[in-house]
Formats: sequence, structure tokens, C-alpha cells
Amino acid sequence: MPSSARRRRVHRKPGVDTGIIALIGLSILSIILQSFENLAEKYGGVFHVFEVATVAVFTAEYILRIWTADLLYPGEKHPRLKYIVSFMAVIDLLAILPFYLPFISADMRFLRMIRLFRLFRLLRVFKLGRYFDALQVILKVIRESSTRLIISVMLCLFVMLFSAIVMYTVENPVQPEQFPNVIASLWWAICTLTTVGYGDVYPVTVVGRFFASVISLVGIGIIAIPTGIIAAGFTSVIDGRQSDRDPKKYCPYCGHRIE
Amino acid sequence: MPSSARRRRVHRKPGVDTGIIALIGLSILSIILQSFENLAEKYGGVFHVFEVATVAVFTAEYILRIWTADLLYPGEKHPRLKYIVSFMAVIDLLAILPFYLPFISADMRFLRMIRLFRLFRLLRVFKLGRYFDALQVILKVIRESSTRLIISVMLCLFVMLFSAIVMYTVENPVQPEQFPNVIASLWWAICTLTTVGYGDVYPVTVVGRFFASVISLVGIGIIAIPTGIIAAGFTSVIDGRQSDRDPKKYCPYCGHRIE
Amino acid sequence: MPSSARRRRVHRKPGVDTGIIALIGLSILSIILQSFENLAEKYGGVFHVFEVATVAVFTAEYILRIWTADLLYPGEKHPRLKYIVSFMAVIDLLAILPFYLPFISADMRFLRMIRLFRLFRLLRVFKLGRYFDALQVILKVIRESSTRLIISVMLCLFVMLFSAIVMYTVENPVQPEQFPNVIASLWWAICTLTTVGYGDVYPVTVVGRFFASVISLVGIGIIAIPTGIIAAGFTSVIDGRQSDRDPKKYCPYCGHRIE
Amino acid sequence: MPSSARRRRVHRKPGVDTGIIALIGLSILSIILQSFENLAEKYGGVFHVFEVATVAVFTAEYILRIWTADLLYPGEKHPRLKYIVSFMAVIDLLAILPFYLPFISADMRFLRMIRLFRLFRLLRVFKLGRYFDALQVILKVIRESSTRLIISVMLCLFVMLFSAIVMYTVENPVQPEQFPNVIASLWWAICTLTTVGYGDVYPVTVVGRFFASVISLVGIGIIAIPTGIIAAGFTSVIDGRQSDRDPKKYCPYCGHRIE
Repeated sequence: MPSSARRRRVHRKPGVDTGIIALIGLSILSIILQSFENLAEKYGGVFHVFEVATVAVFTAEYILRIWTADLLYPGEKHPRLKYIVSFMAVIDLLAILPFYLPFISADMRFLRMIRLFRLFRLLRVFKLGRYFDALQVILKVIRESSTRLIISVMLCLFVMLFSAIVMYTVENPVQPEQFPNVIASLWWAICTLTTVGYGDVYPVTVVGRFFASVISLVGIGIIAIPTGIIAAGFTSVIDGRQSDRDPKKYCPYCGHRIE
Repeated sequence: MPSSARRRRVHRKPGVDTGIIALIGLSILSIILQSFENLAEKYGGVFHVFEVATVAVFTAEYILRIWTADLLYPGEKHPRLKYIVSFMAVIDLLAILPFYLPFISADMRFLRMIRLFRLFRLLRVFKLGRYFDALQVILKVIRESSTRLIISVMLCLFVMLFSAIVMYTVENPVQPEQFPNVIASLWWAICTLTTVGYGDVYPVTVVGRFFASVISLVGIGIIAIPTGIIAAGFTSVIDGRQSDRDPKKYCPYCGHRIE
Repeated sequence: MPSSARRRRVHRKPGVDTGIIALIGLSILSIILQSFENLAEKYGGVFHVFEVATVAVFTAEYILRIWTADLLYPGEKHPRLKYIVSFMAVIDLLAILPFYLPFISADMRFLRMIRLFRLFRLLRVFKLGRYFDALQVILKVIRESSTRLIISVMLCLFVMLFSAIVMYTVENPVQPEQFPNVIASLWWAICTLTTVGYGDVYPVTVVGRFFASVISLVGIGIIAIPTGIIAAGFTSVIDGRQSDRDPKKYCPYCGHRIE
Repeated sequence: MPSSARRRRVHRKPGVDTGIIALIGLSILSIILQSFENLAEKYGGVFHVFEVATVAVFTAEYILRIWTADLLYPGEKHPRLKYIVSFMAVIDLLAILPFYLPFISADMRFLRMIRLFRLFRLLRVFKLGRYFDALQVILKVIRESSTRLIISVMLCLFVMLFSAIVMYTVENPVQPEQFPNVIASLWWAICTLTTVGYGDVYPVTVVGRFFASVISLVGIGIIAIPTGIIAAGFTSVIDGRQSDRDPKKYCPYCGHRIE
């Protein structure tokens, strides 16, 4: 869509975007630094000033973006309304709104969660530069394989639920503290099937270990299926791209002219 | 098979199916909730009533399905008998039968195991909707790669058995409690080769660690082989599907008629 | 090689082979059971008798195979000598020889190691039946990708050595017991790069954790490369096989006759 | 580049190269052995003499390589300068320079780090023999997939940062020692997403475990994407190599001339 890309370019100034992304980055860095108790105590004032400044800039940016939305959707009847309900604009709003609602800001923990939306704002990085194309390829592969990936995730969840119930039945009488209920058992199942294996919960009975062994082996398969789907997806998309480059007028195999 | 699909559609009413699947889901949720000791004590009566109601519905459904089996297999001589011995019908029977046999129901643990058959009943979800096609692709890939996958599982079991015996020989004199016998050693081998690595059992001798290192590296290969098989399977099936759609009488690339 | 396959069939009697494989299986089962201390004490006599009987049968089989070696290599000048130095015959000899050398049999541990050669004898299972073909495909893929796989293993060893030395330098002053020397550090590197992660050794310093994080991420790549190689190998071999089935006289793409 | 390869062959004598590589190998072995405290104490003098001898040989080699650089780049104006700033020459210099700077050599730990450059010198092994070709294939795959791999690493880092902040918020109040700040939480995120799972840090709250489960499942995807990219890269490069060999003027399938 070259014309829509041109329109977007009108709306966006590269310098402003780079600046905003840098500010988002700094804002996330400040979240990380504030998590260090001694830093939070010592430089509490600095963090607060930076916070206020950041929110001010983000708010200004948000208002200006709504203002110029008619440049983004020229033919549209209500361009500003359309912009406000767009995914990125909602994220942008959620990242600043809580700071204007004192009753929310009161709870530090909730505030931090809300500020996570700024991370999503960081996704804008992908819009810039030469990586955009590669990201599109990855997203295309995921989109084209989506139903297969969903099915494999569903199979995975089914196996997890099954393992969790069996393991609870087998291990609960021996380790009531490790396997108190099916939900706790599900935690074990997920750790095992994804091959993370923290080692905080593991079977000790012979039946449990036998069953866990079978589940671990199934785990390899569980990993192999989505990997296989994605690998085949990339093979197919890359082949598709290459054939795009070939002139379509001749058969790439036997060289016959295609009329 | 469009005609068999049509017949099945006669037998199945989408509304009923959705209701039954919802009930199966609720029934599994009740298994999970009952595993919480405090919930089981407090709402014991509720769970019991729900259980009786569920079994009643499942029994009615089972009888009705046998009743209408002649619609499912019209040309068949003994359609009801054929339905009764079908895989899904056996699962359905196993999911309700134990509740009519008091001497089985007496043992709570065994009962829970039996109820696991309801999970298999949940597999019906896959029959519905737009994911059926994607599931067929996954099953086709697994079916077509089945001999290769079985061989790779056999190689894997062989490596596991080998590692277990070697590790038992090496580590047993130093850690008799961790490696008391070859079966316990096999547990270590499976945890390592599948890269789960709980950390409950691991070698401490230099020889044992050297051997475990080799085994871990082999583990990558063990995972790589089935993943590679499945990836190649998907590549091949996806390509195959595309060529299925093309009429075989024309070159799929340039459209020339093949004489 | 149909003619070599026919010759082999002359030499081998399916019934005898199945019996021998069953005996090898039982012999390995006996190794496993003997590792249980209480069983070894209680049924020591039974195990001994079974051992002697097994070795007797294996010895008889070995002699008969040498005897009939001329049927296996009909055109050969020294068929028996050729058979004796073949891989499977050496394995067969190693599996029985120690029992005739009393000074070796004296050491139980060494004896158990020697008996591991019987596991390799179990590899004969793959010669039988319908899985032989699938095994050939897997072996072909590994053989064709062997140089690439060796390079990726070498890269992997290089990364391991590098990580081990860095980690020893960083963590040794803080955890001298966990990282006493580079070899111990290498154990950590292997556990991490193969994503096994037992959790017996892990970095605690900030620098160490930062470095371990980089290494873990590299670990994904280390696994991805051989998996990718093998996946591509299977894709290539499966495509090759399919084109084998196609009649070679016509171009499979445009249908032109190949003169 | 056949002509550049010929020039390089003039500069390099296989015997010398093999000797140098062997000396690098011994030098790294000495680093490993010196990490054993008792060996370092007992054979301190031997290690020192070997060190001095090694550095002497490496220095002589470095000077001779500069001397003969005009044979390597015959047409060049300043061949020696060009050689000195080349990647391998800088590595070579870094591997010997510190031993001539007494104030650096004073710090044993820093010295060991510097000596790590010798590991990079070991990379010369790949220049020799029949594996060079296979390494080129692997490097070509990585190079061609590099933008996609970088994007998937960036996505991975994004998911890690996101998980770390969420997990810190959820687990910090319950386990302040395990999740003291976002950086510590990041360590958990990396261990989990790469499926290493040491088990030194793991969530204990229900919310934390639910979140960790989602992250673990995403972890499979995180591994699947680069594996898929590399697998598709190998498939493409291997296919590409085959088509490179085929003359482009004929249909690769039926051999018809393409007009």
C-alpha cells in the first residue's frame, strides 16, 4: 500500500519519533532503576520529576496526534475518532491516563502495572528502519500458520491437563505438600512439558516417575510440532518471496513462455 | 469423503454437541475443584448432585446415540453393534460405567482415574469448527512420519538405557542413594536427554560428569531428529496440499498441457 | 543392493534371529534386575545360571555364524576372516569373551561395563521388519549432514570452552566451591548450553549472571543450528525419495519427454 | 575468489600453521591446568617457562607475518599496515601484547581474560582441511537469515523485559530476596524463556505461577522461531547450492534448453 505509507509519512516526522522512542526507553529504564530500593530512596525526587516530565511530553504528543489525525486518514469522515479507537492510540492513552487519576496513582503496585503499557509503546521501534521487512516476514509466517499453531497449543493444553490430573492422583498421597491439588500439579506439568524443569516439584513415586518420563518424552514432541510448523512456514514464505522476484513471464523450470 | 460427512451431519445436532462439550468441560472443572481439600469438604453435596446429574445426561446421550446409530451407518447390517464397538463409544461408556458399579465407586482414587476418560471425550471439541482442517494436517504429518518418529523414539530409548546402565555403574559407588539401581538411573537419563533437568539427581564424579556432558550433547541431537522429521513432514505436506489442488494434467508452473 | 540383501537372507533365519534378540533382551533385563540389591542377593543363583546359559547360547551362535560365513560372502577368498573382523562380529565377541577370562570376571564393575556390549547387539532389532527402511532414511540424513553437524558441534565446544574460562575467572573468587577450576566450570557451561540446567552450579555475581544470560541465549542458537541442519536434511532426502518414485522418463513439472 | 585463495596459500605454509595451532591448543590446555590450584602450585615454574616460550614463538610468528605481508597483498600500497589492522592480526597482537606490559601482567585475573584471545586464535583450525566448506555453508545461512534472527532476538528481549517487570511486581512482596529488583527478575526471565530452568529462582504465588506458565509456553515459541528461521535457511541454501551447479540455460528437471 504505497499511498497509505505516504500518508503515514506525512503524519510522522522521523526526528520526533526517534525522540519519543528514546523517551519511552528512558522511562522504562527509570522503572527498572526504581525497583532498586536504595536508588528509589536516594533519588526519589529525581524519579518523580522525570516521571512528571515524561507524562507531560506523552500527553502533548497524544493530543498533537489526535489533532493531526485528519492527515493520517484524509478521506475519513471522523478521522480523530478513528485514531482514538486505534490500537496504538489506546495503548498511548493507557500509558498516561492513570497519572491523572489520583485514586489509582495511590497504589504503587497497580501504577507499575499500568506503566507496563509503555513497553508496548516500545514496539514502535519495529516501525523504524530496515528491520521492518524482516518483522513482516516473521509475522506473515505466524499468521499463515496460526490455525495450526493454535491447534498444537490446544493439544499441548490437553496433554498438560491430562498429566496434571494423573500426577495429582498418583503423587498427592505421597507428597501432599508438593501436589496439594490439580492446579499445583498443572504447574509441574507445564514446567516439565516445556522442559524448563525448575526442580521445585517433581515426582518421587515409581508410578509417578514412569508417568513423568512418558510426559517428558511427549514434551519433546510438543516442542517439535510448533517448531516444525514454523520451520515449514518459513521455508514456504521464503520460497514464495523468491518466486516473487522471478519474472512471471517465463516458467522458472522449463523456460516456456507463459502466455 | 463428502457423503460420509453428510451422514454424520444427519446424526449430529450442533446444538446438542455444543451442550455436551460444555457439560464435559464443567465435569472436568469439577474434578479440578474437588482436588482442593477445603472445597471438597465444603461443597461435597453440590459436587455429588452435579456428578449424578452429569452421569444421567451422559447415559441418556449414550443410549440415544446407540438408538440413532442406524442413521450414522445406513447401509450397515448391525449399525448399533458397529457403533458400540467404535472408539468414541467405548470412551463414552468407560466415562459413565463405573458409576453404576458400586464396588468400583468405593475407591475414590480409582474413580478419579476412570473419570479421566472424560478428558478424551473432550477431544470432540476438535470435531467442531474451523480448526478441524488444521488438526487433520497435523495428524497427516504425524501419520506420514510415524515410522521415522518411532525409529527415533527407539534410538532415544536405546541411548537412555545405555546411559542409565553406564551412569549406574559409575555413580552408584559414590551416591548409592541417588543411583540405587538402573531404574533410578533411567530416571536421570530421561530427565537429562529431554533437557528437563529437575536437578534432583545429577552426577558428582568426574567420570560421571564427563559422561553426562556427552549425553547432554547427544540430547540435543535426540531432540533435533524428531523436530527435523516433523519440520520436513510439514514442508512436504504443505507442498503436497498445494499440488493436490493443481490439476495434474498441466505443468503446475507454466500451465502447459502434459501430453 | 538387492543381491547383497538376498545373500544376507540366505545366511539369516528369521526364527533364530528373533530368538537371539529375545535372549539379548532378557539378558539386558537381567542386568537391570541385578542392579536391585535385594533381588541380586535373593536370586543370585538364578541370575548366575541364566548368565551361564546365555553365554553358552551366544558362544554357540558366534561359532555357527563363523562356520556359515562362506554363505554370507560367497565370492570372498577368506570369508570367515572377513566375518570375524566385521563390526557386528567384534561386538558379539566382546559380549562373550570376558566370561572366559577369569581375571576380568573377578571385577564386578568392569564386568558390567563389558556386558554393555550386549546393548549394541540389541541394535540387531533394527535389521528386522518394516522399520529398517525408516532407519536408513535417518542414517542417510545424518551421513549427508555429517560435516555440517561436526562443524556445529565444534562451534558448540568452542563456545563451551570460552564460557567455561570466562565463568571460572568471574565466579571463582566468589564461589570457589562451585567453580574450583575450568573443568568444573565446563560442567556448568555444558548444563547451560544444552538447556538441561540441573541447578547444582549457577552464577551468583552480577557479571556472572549477565554472562550466563548471553550464554543461555547463545544456547538457543546452538540447539537451533543442528536442528536446522537435520530438518533441512530430511526435507532434502524426502524430496529426493519422492522424485525417485516418479517415472524418470518425463519431466515431473512440464511433462516433456526426457530423451 | 580463486586468486585471493592462491595468494593466501603463498603466504601460509601448512606445516607452520599446524604447528602454531598445536601450540595454541597447548597454551589453552595450560590455562585449564593452571586453574587447578594444586597443579598451579606444584608446577608453577613449568607453567611459567612454557608461557615465556609460547609468547616468544607467537611474537616471532607475528613479526614474520608482518614481514611477509607484502606476499599476502601484492598489489597493495601499504600491505604491512593493512595486515596489522586486519581482524586476525589484532587478535594475534592482543594475545601477546599484555606479557610485555608489566603493569598489566601484575593482575593475574585480568591476564587470564586477555589470554582468552588465544581461544579466538584457535578459530584458525576452521581454515584448515575439509570442514572449511561446511563452515562456509553455516555462516552463509546465518548471514542470509541475520535480519530475521536479529528481529527474533529483539522480540525475545522484549518478552524478557516485559516478563521481568511483571514478575517483579507480582513476586517481590512475597519473595523479596528472590526478586529484589527488575534486574534479578530478568535473570529469572532469561532462565525460563531459554528453558534452562536452574531452579534458583521461581515463582511461588498463584498469579506468579500462572504468569510463569504463560511465559514458559511463549518460551517454546521463542525457541521455535530462530530454529525455524535457521532450518528454512539451510533448506534454501542447500537448494540454492544445487541450483548453482546447474547451468541456468537448461531446465533443471528435463534438460530442455530455455530459449
